[in-house]
Amino acid sequence: MIFKAEIDIMPLEAILDPQGKAVTSSMSNIGLTEISNVRIGKHITLKVDAENETIANEKVTQACKDLLCNQIMESFTFSIEALN
Amino acid sequence: MIFKAEIDIMPLEAILDPQGKAVTSSMSNIGLTEISNVRIGKHITLKVDAENETIANEKVTQACKDLLCNQIMESFTFSIEALN
Repeated sequence: MIFKAEIDIMPLEAILDPQGKAVTSSMSNIGLTEISNVRIGKHITLKVDAENETIANEKVTQACKDLLCNQIMESFTFSIEALN
Repeated sequence: MIFKAEIDIMPLEAILDPQGKAVTSSMSNIGLTEISNVRIGKHITLKVDAENETIANEKVTQACKDLLCNQIMESFTFSIEALN
């Protein structure tokens, strides 16, 4: 069975996000002074072939921990849905 | 009223995603052969000060179109929720 995972990887709250800070400043330059606290992370989609949702969850968690996410600086969340 | 927006910006389906391709290959190198079709985009969170949700929606759409998203190569989706 094929599952699709949607993963969000964000810098930890305690960690400075210089890219987000730069974009926050740019917002007021284009007239959007109402926008603040921009934080920028990664959004990753992938497909995983697994017998059931529990196994798919384990595979995606492993992918996040071992490859996608640097847990010292980032946290991850994800959701999984079956395709078809 | 303060709203929090969660924005996903992904490369269009028709466009090659070399970063995603590289990560897909790395998955089998760490034993996760079940994972395929990795695509990598951006996840952006921000706060927006607006009278109501409709105005907040407009502001976030404007931010995406004018600054965050290159609509020739990327598409964006977002959700908004009121804080407190």
